[in-house]
Amino acid sequence: MSAALIDQLLHLLGSKGVSTDAHDMAPWLTDWRGRWTGRALALVSPASTAEVAAVVKLAAAARVPLVPQGGNTSMVGGATPSDAGDALILSLRRMNAVRCINAQANLAVAEAGVILSNFHDAALAIGRRFPLTLGGKGSATIGGLVSTNAGGTQVLRFGTMRKLVLGLEAVLPDGSIYDGLASLKKDNRGYDLTQLLIGAEGTLGVVTAASLRLMPAIADRAAAWIGLNSPHTALKLLRWLEARTGDQIESFEIIPADTLGLVLKHIPNTRAPFEGAHEWHVLVEYVESVGAAATEALTTLIAAAHEAGLLDDAVIAASEAQIDAFWHMRDSISEAERADGPAVQHDISVPVDAMPDFMIDAARVIEAEFGGTRVSAFGHLGDGNVHFHVRAPFGVDRAAWQNDVGTPASHRVHDLVVAAHGSISAEHGIGQMKRAELLRLSDPARLYALRAIKSAFDPLNIMNPGKLIPLASDALVQ
Amino acid sequence: MSAALIDQLLHLLGSKGVSTDAHDMAPWLTDWRGRWTGRALALVSPASTAEVAAVVKLAAAARVPLVPQGGNTSMVGGATPSDAGDALILSLRRMNAVRCINAQANLAVAEAGVILSNFHDAALAIGRRFPLTLGGKGSATIGGLVSTNAGGTQVLRFGTMRKLVLGLEAVLPDGSIYDGLASLKKDNRGYDLTQLLIGAEGTLGVVTAASLRLMPAIADRAAAWIGLNSPHTALKLLRWLEARTGDQIESFEIIPADTLGLVLKHIPNTRAPFEGAHEWHVLVEYVESVGAAATEALTTLIAAAHEAGLLDDAVIAASEAQIDAFWHMRDSISEAERADGPAVQHDISVPVDAMPDFMIDAARVIEAEFGGTRVSAFGHLGDGNVHFHVRAPFGVDRAAWQNDVGTPASHRVHDLVVAAHGSISAEHGIGQMKRAELLRLSDPARLYALRAIKSAFDPLNIMNPGKLIPLASDALVQ
Repeated sequence: MSAALIDQLLHLLGSKGVSTDAHDMAPWLTDWRGRWTGRALALVSPASTAEVAAVVKLAAAARVPLVPQGGNTSMVGGATPSDAGDALILSLRRMNAVRCINAQANLAVAEAGVILSNFHDAALAIGRRFPLTLGGKGSATIGGLVSTNAGGTQVLRFGTMRKLVLGLEAVLPDGSIYDGLASLKKDNRGYDLTQLLIGAEGTLGVVTAASLRLMPAIADRAAAWIGLNSPHTALKLLRWLEARTGDQIESFEIIPADTLGLVLKHIPNTRAPFEGAHEWHVLVEYVESVGAAATEALTTLIAAAHEAGLLDDAVIAASEAQIDAFWHMRDSISEAERADGPAVQHDISVPVDAMPDFMIDAARVIEAEFGGTRVSAFGHLGDGNVHFHVRAPFGVDRAAWQNDVGTPASHRVHDLVVAAHGSISAEHGIGQMKRAELLRLSDPARLYALRAIKSAFDPLNIMNPGKLIPLASDALVQ
Repeated sequence: MSAALIDQLLHLLGSKGVSTDAHDMAPWLTDWRGRWTGRALALVSPASTAEVAAVVKLAAAARVPLVPQGGNTSMVGGATPSDAGDALILSLRRMNAVRCINAQANLAVAEAGVILSNFHDAALAIGRRFPLTLGGKGSATIGGLVSTNAGGTQVLRFGTMRKLVLGLEAVLPDGSIYDGLASLKKDNRGYDLTQLLIGAEGTLGVVTAASLRLMPAIADRAAAWIGLNSPHTALKLLRWLEARTGDQIESFEIIPADTLGLVLKHIPNTRAPFEGAHEWHVLVEYVESVGAAATEALTTLIAAAHEAGLLDDAVIAASEAQIDAFWHMRDSISEAERADGPAVQHDISVPVDAMPDFMIDAARVIEAEFGGTRVSAFGHLGDGNVHFHVRAPFGVDRAAWQNDVGTPASHRVHDLVVAAHGSISAEHGIGQMKRAELLRLSDPARLYALRAIKSAFDPLNIMNPGKLIPLASDALVQ
């Protein structure tokens, strides 16, 4: 059966489009963080939307699951096949054309396999900018970014992928092609399939191309590293800055003092931005679309905020190199934590105004209930989204701590998030990793709707099975 | 059977919540434009989300259809029951509380039955503004505006309802309550049910409340009436103004000369904004969030645009009364057309950059193929959305013209829209009116997905049946 399917695929795509070679497949069988490893019948790499549609039809006829994959940078095992070995990896990486890009219309159509940093370059080449960016930009692809509704560090101003997608092309589970690429500002022909496919983690179809918004290129940018006394003051500072600058504050990242301490301890070539000790730190980035006075403007703003009692100390980056050095500290937090010891990580959101209280109160609860743990809550305060990490005491056994403390602490963090009307997955999605927690913590209406949509679109359950939608067996995993 | 259901409903809601009186029901059985009249078992008016859930459960158990209704201002028969008389009208008008409104968070939670103009007032009372507005604001309700993804005249800057909804509460067809009101800027727990319910025309559930974005109140506004030579120049002018003002251009409405002529002829107390003759007219509104120099700023801008050859003549409104007079002319176009004779109306969109060509070319095709007709294409040029009306020659018999010319001309307009990758319903939705055209003009993937989602959510087909989703019998209506 599977040999016949492979023959059909070879006939369809040629040898460039199909591999069953263990060496070719290996990099795509394990997720980016190395937590899940699966097996697959073959790695299938169509080069066009028509080829994707033909592959989906063959797979549907043979009842063989498909695991769509872009850059394989999922944080939740969303693009890794199961170890049943009965699936095809459907790589979109050969579909890597920017089909059109138009400065006048501030619009581009990019295929699913276009790598984010290449797309950034394509926009810059015509004096425009695609504002979404994140750590994995050198690997992550447009299709994956759409399918996970990716966020990143510029969400404050531009929103997640959902706000940047103007239209989609996708192959549905029956092999039909949904052509929703035309960028219409207004369209009320019923349910919005484009919105439904965004963040669907490949469980409803395969995104093959997207129409994406472009922005004017940045003319100038500036950054400040700020010391202040609490997340509450930090949020007040953000609102104060926004009221005075419109939408020129692009990033506003909060970092607690001991988390910064881990970076300074473990990451080479980092140094404290200033001498004094502050409980909380904020990295602000300010941009101008026109002009070249960002540093002067931010300096004036920060001085006035200091006058207003909204911060205790601040350093303005004196050069692009120093801006990069600030970001390097922010982006090295996870690496510093890993170097320091075990931790359980949570990518959570609550309503923005509730976040300062949540950061303080939830950390107090967790540290009290799980003796010796330390909470690092850092990140996108202005989006109501922090990475809430619970770190083990020094010197514990990793596996035993994960089992005895890490997992129960994770459940407790998620319980606190749900009590605050928040989300247990603000950015990274559900994938394999959070399926059981989604089951445990979702109301019946949400689960009913998720399952109803999934089974309606994909009655054969061939599109990325085992991802996102809780399974009956997940109830046993709790 | 139905008597037992009415008894159950009376027991649940009391006499304030249920009426079978023909006089009480009459206003809600005919649509706003008077095109459809249906019948109903009763008018049911729950006063809380729990009551809505209980009504839906009773209706589901009895297999009785529900027709959700807000202000009954649908343009496409979307809230009118069929003449089978087997349905309940589910009025949300008693759910009219603004549950909370927060200036600091720029956020309000409004129940489905809140009338738009009342919600405008609630926002103004705390120094904020809800920017979506439209002709029916004195009747249209939040629930209906959400369920139809309403647009209006400020879409250029703020988008349709889809962009203003931060969260929803809804009752699903099984009576379960979806609590998605918490306003999370980032949430990747799978398919976005809030987005799916927006624009679903009540076919997937009953929206009971919405979290909505508020904006700073307007400090000052100004308007100009502009004469120019083509839609192409008009779009260039819009881009030029946007490049110089950021997002301060709130409205940009285009009107052809002979359409303005109808207004001046049929609407009392209107007069030509200036003496010269121009083929095309544009009404621009410019706002400032801070300051009170809107008129001066717009005057300077318009003078510079004139210098740049982007317009032929312009008048700046000298007072709020004159701004209102400008808008009165724009808002009276449909009334003026009705007074002039029969017409078929189309609410269509194409990609914004393609709209100037479409306005010229499609009008030429229609006027050539349907002798004696005149096209009025006017409205939201900056959204790629115009009202494309085909007017009958003077003195024709209304019914005969509709049959012989109007209907075939409508099909031809929609064919041209589809050829331009546009939408046959930019604003008004599908309802009953456009179901057959949606069937005729949708690709199989779209129809498959619409039907799959509908049957998954509502297997008993009790939620607003006969709306939005094409029926098999629609194929016979062509």
